[in-house]
Amino acid sequence: MIARLRQTVWSGITARVRGTWDSVADAIRPAVPGFGTVRRGHVALVGVGPGAIDLLTLRALRCIEAADVILYDRLVEPEVVALAPRKARRIYVGKEVGAHAWPQPRIDAKIVEEAQKGLRVVRLKSGDPSIFGRVTEELTAVRAAGLAVEVVPGVTAACAAAAHMQLSLTERGVSDTLILTTGTCREGDPLPESALHARPGTNTVFYMSVRQAARIRDGLIARGVPDGARLRIAADVAKPGEQLLHCALRDLPDTLASSSISGCAILMLTWPKEVEALSDPTVATETVAPVSAANAPS
Amino acid sequence: MIARLRQTVWSGITARVRGTWDSVADAIRPAVPGFGTVRRGHVALVGVGPGAIDLLTLRALRCIEAADVILYDRLVEPEVVALAPRKARRIYVGKEVGAHAWPQPRIDAKIVEEAQKGLRVVRLKSGDPSIFGRVTEELTAVRAAGLAVEVVPGVTAACAAAAHMQLSLTERGVSDTLILTTGTCREGDPLPESALHARPGTNTVFYMSVRQAARIRDGLIARGVPDGARLRIAADVAKPGEQLLHCALRDLPDTLASSSISGCAILMLTWPKEVEALSDPTVATETVAPVSAANAPS
Repeated sequence: MIARLRQTVWSGITARVRGTWDSVADAIRPAVPGFGTVRRGHVALVGVGPGAIDLLTLRALRCIEAADVILYDRLVEPEVVALAPRKARRIYVGKEVGAHAWPQPRIDAKIVEEAQKGLRVVRLKSGDPSIFGRVTEELTAVRAAGLAVEVVPGVTAACAAAAHMQLSLTERGVSDTLILTTGTCREGDPLPESALHARPGTNTVFYMSVRQAARIRDGLIARGVPDGARLRIAADVAKPGEQLLHCALRDLPDTLASSSISGCAILMLTWPKEVEALSDPTVATETVAPVSAANAPS
Repeated sequence: MIARLRQTVWSGITARVRGTWDSVADAIRPAVPGFGTVRRGHVALVGVGPGAIDLLTLRALRCIEAADVILYDRLVEPEVVALAPRKARRIYVGKEVGAHAWPQPRIDAKIVEEAQKGLRVVRLKSGDPSIFGRVTEELTAVRAAGLAVEVVPGVTAACAAAAHMQLSLTERGVSDTLILTTGTCREGDPLPESALHARPGTNTVFYMSVRQAARIRDGLIARGVPDGARLRIAADVAKPGEQLLHCALRDLPDTLASSSISGCAILMLTWPKEVEALSDPTVATETVAPVSAANAPS
């Protein structure tokens, strides 16, 4: 019932927004040379936030409503895809592990192919495109084809989870630093040492790390985090299946195993500034090897 | 001219959104017991994103449009404040260093005082409330008064800057970890060692750190970052005075000094995974002192 009401309200709002935009644009067009000229072959990589339709930005909404072609994957809610005009073509690019997944180069090529037809292509990205969004591959492909491209930022999962739990991700005098990291990496690369960054005064959020839970637990304990420290789990934030859990660090793998939480969850650990690490040789002897200045970051 | 057009377009859209919401709510109210009951004494801590009005989320827009009282500071754009209903009271709480600044406890007390009158109080926060937003103080005060409170997440400055520059903040095989840190701290606390977290495979974004530029440069160089590494500066992202610059790390203080950039800028350094640190004893001998388990993070 509530879902139906929400849908009614939102479809009403988005229809009006679309109508207003069109009518204002119509009124303005004759007065301003060049206004509203159809831009050909345009790509927008659009962050749609964590899931709930009302966590879209107005800019994202406007992009979606102007789309000729929408590319989306399993992380994007159907309600968001439904905001595209009826005539817009919808292309499901999967990205689920296993069947029906499109490899990244195929997605890149499809974006370019559609934009080269002169269409407005909108690639929907869960959360914010710049945070674990694989945006570089798509930007590179679009730029190489000489097409116009725009990136629309979004609300990342850590912020949505913090808002929902009414927590701060940074806290003066407690955690001056927020670390967003991942347990997943490029195929063939060694797994990232995502627990390596935690230290007193930090809040660490692990994206795409559910499958690495045991490894992350062990890494954090090796860093000196007490094994009874509270670890928060936010799964499917702002989506219908949302789950918010917490457990002691030591119990993380068991807690995940006994829940229905899948890959789309974030793990959060606050390590307050005043809590020093438990003594451990792996932290105390940590070193960074010297290199030549030729490899300087740029 | 463009600004006038944008204003026309947006005021049209927001008027329609408000109208739609009201009319749908009116239609629903008789059918659903309890729907639309005025909630008394409600506080919303609302992230408005980095500045541009169209980077507001729909949820933030709805909160602002339902406000009886709006509290805002110098980081919130006037266009955003103007979205509140005409009858809403607007309270400027400053927070600028020097004259007209409200200390945090006075802001907390004002929020509570207004909500206790039974009003819908909306506290606007630049960016995302959970990231350097001082949200805990306000949440604590509101909860202590037994009032209902909601947090609305927003687009944080790092994401908006990355979208504008068309960069990724995380890059598979290059920077698996994003660090958001600050050069500013609670009065009386030692300055946070914000450069301490940088290491190969990270992207570090420094918030509120312009005044600490020399210290951050020195800290990064001490960590082993080559002094010629490129540092990006994004000032007033998505605001009228937006500036995007870059310089060699060694030149950061001079670049800032010769620009008109004030405190509201972020600094960004990517340290690719394959670039090891230059050898330095402060990194190599870094240790973390042991503590008792009684101070475990929770």
